Amino acid sequence: MIDVTLLGTGGMLPKKDRWLASCLISCGGHSILIDCGEGTQIALKCAQRKTKPIDLICITHFHADHISGLPGFLLSMGNEGRTEPVTIAGPEGIEKIVRNLCIIAPQLPFEIRFADLHDSAGFVSGSLNINSYKLNHSIECIGYNFELPRSGKFDIAKAEKNGIPKSLWSQLQREGRVFSGDKLYTYDMVSSGPRRGIKISYCTDTRPCASIVPAVRDSDLFICEGLYYDDEKFSRTAEKGHMIFREAAGIAKEAEVKRLWLTHFSPALDNPEDGLEQARKTFPETYCGYDGMSITLTYHD
Amino acid sequence: MIDVTLLGTGGMLPKKDRWLASCLISCGGHSILIDCGEGTQIALKCAQRKTKPIDLICITHFHADHISGLPGFLLSMGNEGRTEPVTIAGPEGIEKIVRNLCIIAPQLPFEIRFADLHDSAGFVSGSLNINSYKLNHSIECIGYNFELPRSGKFDIAKAEKNGIPKSLWSQLQREGRVFSGDKLYTYDMVSSGPRRGIKISYCTDTRPCASIVPAVRDSDLFICEGLYYDDEKFSRTAEKGHMIFREAAGIAKEAEVKRLWLTHFSPALDNPEDGLEQARKTFPETYCGYDGMSITLTYHD
Repeated sequence: MIDVTLLGTGGMLPKKDRWLASCLISCGGHSILIDCGEGTQIALKCAQRKTKPIDLICITHFHADHISGLPGFLLSMGNEGRTEPVTIAGPEGIEKIVRNLCIIAPQLPFEIRFADLHDSAGFVSGSLNINSYKLNHSIECIGYNFELPRSGKFDIAKAEKNGIPKSLWSQLQREGRVFSGDKLYTYDMVSSGPRRGIKISYCTDTRPCASIVPAVRDSDLFICEGLYYDDEKFSRTAEKGHMIFREAAGIAKEAEVKRLWLTHFSPALDNPEDGLEQARKTFPETYCGYDGMSITLTYHD
Repeated sequence: MIDVTLLGTGGMLPKKDRWLASCLISCGGHSILIDCGEGTQIALKCAQRKTKPIDLICITHFHADHISGLPGFLLSMGNEGRTEPVTIAGPEGIEKIVRNLCIIAPQLPFEIRFADLHDSAGFVSGSLNINSYKLNHSIECIGYNFELPRSGKFDIAKAEKNGIPKSLWSQLQREGRVFSGDKLYTYDMVSSGPRRGIKISYCTDTRPCASIVPAVRDSDLFICEGLYYDDEKFSRTAEKGHMIFREAAGIAKEAEVKRLWLTHFSPALDNPEDGLEQARKTFPETYCGYDGMSITLTYHD
């Protein structure tokens, strides 16, 4: 089970009624914050979420609207009594950027660890597998996938064929591996093979590019930027390294995702919903994100 | 005439219903921003003020709640088409701090100039005389005075005594100085001597200390921090280098200011007004600041 909450859905400038694009992904008692623009610490409170479970912050790129809230956010974590380390992942150079910003937050009561993510890096956080992929923006920018894997069903025939003692079956199912005598038994010895898990993809800021469709293929939830919906705004949007709603919908369709949430709306866009009908012509399962929008994703059966 | 607006009145953490302490002072088409915590760019819009007239930003100290909004604020100024330089004044080291923070805003379309303010520095901005004085906080911190001077009345007897040709009187009054033939005439030759102008003082964050009373003496408006009002919170407040309402009121009384606006309330203080009655026992002209609180100060007669 994964909870996903859009803390903010604005791009470029924070507005009094729309926080900057940021997302919280929670699974098994751990939370991951994606991006932290100015005001994200307030957006988190507005969404009635806590800093405590956040042990990973994934930054997409180093434009101010995606990272300038970080010193304040980290200070808030400290004020709330945090002593456990926090990992901050992002494009190459993340440590230098964060150290520069944190010149005004020099005495945090917890350790910060850094993960420099190159072209296509994969790592594990709690029960989630995370991988990043390169996007196409005006500066280096990465997208993220978060996947909760699901092991196979217990296969009695396979267990018997592999000669696994019946007395160990339930422990093996519960714990994944069991030592008995001098032997190690693992769950794959009794499993029918992995099943479809849950996959969430997050893409902002970017032009459509070759890396996105294969990366986000088959996602249960594809969160993607849509700066504007109007075709008249297309050139201006593309020039700035962004995309419009129908481009995001086109990617969603091609990658056969289950649903698309649009985010990172231009501050000039008062009613993103006005562009929804057109986007749904390309991909019917398109939704406009809003601050506080939330979903709980579970396994498919 | 000077307009003063409190953009935010919160301390330590931004809240959804109270922006971080920040103030806008406007006079003769120029504006000065004091402090710029996270969200100040939104607070400015909420108060229906513009970035365009702001050509000076005065920073009191380098704690995040007073400066972390600066990169976003400067980017907003750029987005609004600014090309004219902006001066940022603050305690020694201001340039290094701002350059560090602006690693995420590397290409501003205007020049930033810096003014390192030592113990007691004075400078002029537009028609205002500004001076700073050292406060007593956990890190180096300065208070600011903003004074609009007022020249004396035209004194006919003095003009005649000094032999100023009558034909130059109105030009001298208008322009302050006139060359005629090989002689320079200045307004002080016809003036009864300077009159009381308008003075505004801004003090946060600090414990009461010896420098404050003489610096803010006789201010028309003394804006001062009050983190809490409750005496039970006194030790905790003092430990952190802050003051409570009655201490600010005590300074206001001793310095014979005209009125006191309290600001920089603790995020735990939901209703600062609850502490007003007690503070007014010390200094009746005490008011609790609120976001957007505004006053226009004019000469006294």
